Amino acid sequence: MERIDGRRHDELRKVKIHRNYIMHAEGSVLIEVGNTKVICTATIEDKVPIWLKGQGVGWISAEYAMLPRATPQRNIRESSKGKVSGRTQEIQRLVGRSLRAVVDLGSLGEKTIWLDCDVIQADGGTRTASITGSFVALADAMNKVLPGEKPLPLYDFLAATSVGIYDGTKLLDLCYAEDSRVSVDMNLVTTGAGKIVEVQGTAEGNPFSWDECLDLMELAQKGIGELVAIQREALGPIAGRIGGLTRAKTRPGHDE
Amino acid sequence: MERIDGRRHDELRKVKIHRNYIMHAEGSVLIEVGNTKVICTATIEDKVPIWLKGQGVGWISAEYAMLPRATPQRNIRESSKGKVSGRTQEIQRLVGRSLRAVVDLGSLGEKTIWLDCDVIQADGGTRTASITGSFVALADAMNKVLPGEKPLPLYDFLAATSVGIYDGTKLLDLCYAEDSRVSVDMNLVTTGAGKIVEVQGTAEGNPFSWDECLDLMELAQKGIGELVAIQREALGPIAGRIGGLTRAKTRPGHDE
Amino acid sequence: MERIDGRRHDELRKVKIHRNYIMHAEGSVLIEVGNTKVICTATIEDKVPIWLKGQGVGWISAEYAMLPRATPQRNIRESSKGKVSGRTQEIQRLVGRSLRAVVDLGSLGEKTIWLDCDVIQADGGTRTASITGSFVALADAMNKVLPGEKPLPLYDFLAATSVGIYDGTKLLDLCYAEDSRVSVDMNLVTTGAGKIVEVQGTAEGNPFSWDECLDLMELAQKGIGELVAIQREALGPIAGRIGGLTRAKTRPGHDE
Amino acid sequence: MERIDGRRHDELRKVKIHRNYIMHAEGSVLIEVGNTKVICTATIEDKVPIWLKGQGVGWISAEYAMLPRATPQRNIRESSKGKVSGRTQEIQRLVGRSLRAVVDLGSLGEKTIWLDCDVIQADGGTRTASITGSFVALADAMNKVLPGEKPLPLYDFLAATSVGIYDGTKLLDLCYAEDSRVSVDMNLVTTGAGKIVEVQGTAEGNPFSWDECLDLMELAQKGIGELVAIQREALGPIAGRIGGLTRAKTRPGHDE
Amino acid sequence: MERIDGRRHDELRKVKIHRNYIMHAEGSVLIEVGNTKVICTATIEDKVPIWLKGQGVGWISAEYAMLPRATPQRNIRESSKGKVSGRTQEIQRLVGRSLRAVVDLGSLGEKTIWLDCDVIQADGGTRTASITGSFVALADAMNKVLPGEKPLPLYDFLAATSVGIYDGTKLLDLCYAEDSRVSVDMNLVTTGAGKIVEVQGTAEGNPFSWDECLDLMELAQKGIGELVAIQREALGPIAGRIGGLTRAKTRPGHDE
Amino acid sequence: MERIDGRRHDELRKVKIHRNYIMHAEGSVLIEVGNTKVICTATIEDKVPIWLKGQGVGWISAEYAMLPRATPQRNIRESSKGKVSGRTQEIQRLVGRSLRAVVDLGSLGEKTIWLDCDVIQADGGTRTASITGSFVALADAMNKVLPGEKPLPLYDFLAATSVGIYDGTKLLDLCYAEDSRVSVDMNLVTTGAGKIVEVQGTAEGNPFSWDECLDLMELAQKGIGELVAIQREALGPIAGRIGGLTRAKTRPGHDE
Repeated sequence: MERIDGRRHDELRKVKIHRNYIMHAEGSVLIEVGNTKVICTATIEDKVPIWLKGQGVGWISAEYAMLPRATPQRNIRESSKGKVSGRTQEIQRLVGRSLRAVVDLGSLGEKTIWLDCDVIQADGGTRTASITGSFVALADAMNKVLPGEKPLPLYDFLAATSVGIYDGTKLLDLCYAEDSRVSVDMNLVTTGAGKIVEVQGTAEGNPFSWDECLDLMELAQKGIGELVAIQREALGPIAGRIGGLTRAKTRPGHDE
Repeated sequence: MERIDGRRHDELRKVKIHRNYIMHAEGSVLIEVGNTKVICTATIEDKVPIWLKGQGVGWISAEYAMLPRATPQRNIRESSKGKVSGRTQEIQRLVGRSLRAVVDLGSLGEKTIWLDCDVIQADGGTRTASITGSFVALADAMNKVLPGEKPLPLYDFLAATSVGIYDGTKLLDLCYAEDSRVSVDMNLVTTGAGKIVEVQGTAEGNPFSWDECLDLMELAQKGIGELVAIQREALGPIAGRIGGLTRAKTRPGHDE
Repeated sequence: MERIDGRRHDELRKVKIHRNYIMHAEGSVLIEVGNTKVICTATIEDKVPIWLKGQGVGWISAEYAMLPRATPQRNIRESSKGKVSGRTQEIQRLVGRSLRAVVDLGSLGEKTIWLDCDVIQADGGTRTASITGSFVALADAMNKVLPGEKPLPLYDFLAATSVGIYDGTKLLDLCYAEDSRVSVDMNLVTTGAGKIVEVQGTAEGNPFSWDECLDLMELAQKGIGELVAIQREALGPIAGRIGGLTRAKTRPGHDE
Repeated sequence: MERIDGRRHDELRKVKIHRNYIMHAEGSVLIEVGNTKVICTATIEDKVPIWLKGQGVGWISAEYAMLPRATPQRNIRESSKGKVSGRTQEIQRLVGRSLRAVVDLGSLGEKTIWLDCDVIQADGGTRTASITGSFVALADAMNKVLPGEKPLPLYDFLAATSVGIYDGTKLLDLCYAEDSRVSVDMNLVTTGAGKIVEVQGTAEGNPFSWDECLDLMELAQKGIGELVAIQREALGPIAGRIGGLTRAKTRPGHDE
Repeated sequence: MERIDGRRHDELRKVKIHRNYIMHAEGSVLIEVGNTKVICTATIEDKVPIWLKGQGVGWISAEYAMLPRATPQRNIRESSKGKVSGRTQEIQRLVGRSLRAVVDLGSLGEKTIWLDCDVIQADGGTRTASITGSFVALADAMNKVLPGEKPLPLYDFLAATSVGIYDGTKLLDLCYAEDSRVSVDMNLVTTGAGKIVEVQGTAEGNPFSWDECLDLMELAQKGIGELVAIQREALGPIAGRIGGLTRAKTRPGHDE
Repeated sequence: MERIDGRRHDELRKVKIHRNYIMHAEGSVLIEVGNTKVICTATIEDKVPIWLKGQGVGWISAEYAMLPRATPQRNIRESSKGKVSGRTQEIQRLVGRSLRAVVDLGSLGEKTIWLDCDVIQADGGTRTASITGSFVALADAMNKVLPGEKPLPLYDFLAATSVGIYDGTKLLDLCYAEDSRVSVDMNLVTTGAGKIVEVQGTAEGNPFSWDECLDLMELAQKGIGELVAIQREALGPIAGRIGGLTRAKTRPGHDE
């Protein structure tokens, strides 16, 4: 089967990561995954959410939005609507939760790092591009406030991609035209070492089998491996400061 | 390892399904999964969302809320806060999406069926209990407006449960005390035939391996099999009207 | 005149009070008044509203809501609408104000007791059932935090009912079908000793005479006497701890 | 007992009604009751609320607000807070409901008359002054669109006042200093003929007896009689067009 | 060209300033500019906005609103809409900013003075009338809290008016009928000495030339001179306490 | 006086205009004015605001926002706050009003063109850069839907800049560091022919004289002339389609 943009079924779109994209932010990248473009900035704030106060640990929080014409039809600003949609909140929670899984929150101290993901052009996979880009902005921000050679409080790399089934074929890194036609849609987030941080598979169309599930996960993992290589190259010497810590013990989750 | 409430690692909590619980609703159940209690009602409305109008197909929409003292600490009403939280919206979207996967929307005609899931007592697993209970309320409502013997527009049964890893042990159907301690938390929704409708696995603590992922999915599937048996028994003769349709063709999903 | 459900004009509907209905709450009841069913929970919080701080007295606050299918037509959640309706706020204020009239706020200390009234099935009289049920939940919560034999800080019992005029006949305890047809609608809240805490009589239809007003109040008082007897029986030994305090002096009201 | 402002216990404050106060409105008055000053305007709109459409009858709707410095302490605008308080909504509902009780909605046709009550200076009794003033603005607006000699669609006059018990003495027409000290507070709305449209008696302090309730109602009725005389004089020849219709039949109420 | 109300092209409408209009406010005026009537109150509050705390200087803040029937068509309350319109916010910011330009914030101490401008009848020029009236209310409030003979912390008088071009003629002090027909609309705020505090000229219709711009500014300045004379007369002896301070040094602005 | 970035007092910052920046929009530019960067997109919608319906003319509407890290300190998203600030609304109104002044709305037909200005990096002058950039996006969008050689419905070019007084020196095109220190701040919007569309001069610090006002306006006009030349070059052949229409007659403004 020929894909819309001529890719092989297991081929990522072209990925570019521009670092230091916004002058004011501690870390910032423009990530392009095909025609999907997201500005990810990392801001370090000297306080934590109220419920974490006094525990000596930090927090990672993410926000996500789209410019009105990131999409083929103009989408109405959430500030005009006066509320943040369910879809936006779901993505924000996913991005924050994923990044927290590779951060040593204890060694951050009582700081919050905000990751802002603003989609300036959307063509499918905006949430996974946000995760992949935010990781780089986060590493840059940490490098800025913790200069030197010692390991950054990042246990490992982190990247994400989407996979789906279209007419029986499993496809890697769906563009929008594909995404709106697949019968199964899965997002996978893993570490550089290939451990799973988040898996979300959805059949709004036909339910899928175990075998399909496993095949999709493998395909995604292949793509994430390539994304991590691109992150590594983009970060240059900073890449060497990632992954130098060992996790002390099991940390429990927070959310039902 | 002994579980908090003495269950085996692969044992569900006691499940009760009371049908026809609210006199006004077309379908309604009180589902109890251990100490978690959710009222699920199904309402049939003679219109569809604007974006579906004129296409001759129906829609399934879900809403979810908790009473203030469903939880150990009183939680503030979302009506008082003036907005619905991200967690609530995520659950609502999950419940609606899951049920749509087993409904023949085309044969519903231009109707919306609302599933309202109101948690009156929470002890972990409220979102999965909402799915399992809503399915029964939905079947009851369909049976009410489509009396007779012909197949209901339900392709199959649908149920959900949660699994997690605690101190290396995989546990089925987490109660709240367990849920807040596991390092991996997974929710699975499948059909009666065991096909996957939704899988969501999250490591806010340590990332997990492929093998752990597969073990958890198998454990969840075992539990869902038992839940479907309980649904079947609760529905009595109506159960015979479920699963009689064949899916005509692949339906695409809607949401990025 | 025969009533819709066969009752005499001065006959209450069947009333049931289930105590300890929700495991997490300090006090909780499910009250059923005919087909009207309300879950009332009492929560004790260790602080008072800002404007009361530092005065050494407590506060009673009430909230009220309906499940979407408590009513024949599905009602849209106030959390979805993003605001609490005028009707809801009026009821919340009435419930809180009424209960405060029998509580010795001074001996509570700087605590707020929240009464949450959630209607799970509505058939008229939900606000009066909320008051009657909340009183029992309140007594239970006080008994829990003040065990022993000494008088609870409750000056007297408190209950409420509605009365109305239909085709010239005065009716006690209106069900919904009656409520929507009466020309005069009155709610009365009194203490166990029969003193008036709140009287609200409304003629959205024809204005009514003094004699009608007095007859209605007498009829309501008869019903409240019976409700107090039911509360007393439901509370068992705790009933003996109510009414043992004498009011020290006139307390002024707060609100214009 | 001497009252704060030297009045007898059964004496109204000085009342002034300025008609045609705002050039744009169909009817408008500035009513002064002692130091309480309210601008009441009546606006006729050529449509009815959605739920009344197509029934050929009209509607009366009221809104109420205070200027920030109507009160001794500046009160924050409800527009800045982004929501209308429970107190405001309760008053708006009371004013609208009371006026509807003397209007022949059927002969209005499908029109809404909006009564806007804006308190520019508050010294107690703002809700009752709003009712008394709005009645005059309403009559003026009806006279404007229905010129001539025929009866206006007003069954009778309508006015309101407050009464309370202070240190055992029953007081008519409470100013703010009195209102904040009484142990019982009652508002009464009656027609010119003395029929009751609304009675609301509240004991946030000590519950009150039947005899006290009756004495207060009588005292309020005396005051309302005087207020109607003032309305009659203010309206001049228009007064003769009020009360000329007979009610056709019992109208049911709308609200639980 | 004859103006709608018979004025010469360079003639102000009749202006009346009633001081001490609201009993509770520290300063209050009803200003009438032709048929435009605005109640302006000044409230002194013992705190400053958070971002000014601890700097030892004060602040001036303004709010603006219209009664629903201030306008020919009833306008919906912003409290009902749940948000303050852009137009309202723009006016509020203009009024506050203008008044701050003549106040010695340093000598106020950490106090905020709130100017509330409530339009009870609108006929064009409500924002400029609000500025002219608020200045008088502000002087009155300062005089009240700083009695004596010493200069008030007001560097100079401040007033405002509007000008426009209609069919080639420049008009002073536009009433609503004129305002809605002019092709250029300009508001000017100056001090008593004629220095410019704010100039806003807008061509929603045809752009205008430099010469037109200058002519309009001159015409406005003539009108403001007359308004200041009216303020001076209204304030009587207090006028002598204005303008006695010299500005110490250039103060920077705050807002982009 | 040396400027912060070494410019002469009457020198613009470096301006770059990238056309066709966002693939989905009918017109889009990234405009850079020094370090200030704004994405401006133009969207054509086939309807007009309700109040314009049926009049056969079009409308131009603008929205403005900043990314959270466009500024040195992270600014909280207006979607999270649930409301649009007064500053944002003021800018949106200014941008829309300015562009409408050079558009022949009559020949647009019943269409709305939305201009979305999203600041991705802010360093002063974001509102004037938004106007200058939006004009180019607007011309591009018109060219796209009206291909050919005939004049576009644009009467003239339109651009904007800011000027201010710092320590007695008049400065052109303020960067943020300058903007926060000037005592007078003025924004000017003019057509290519130099006619004034909007002038806004503000003295939150010291009021300014007529001469200063005129000098500032002249300085701004010089800068706008240079900006129009840059727009002309960026638009290439499309520039020849601008300014070919003559205004038929005076159009009145809309807003008080």
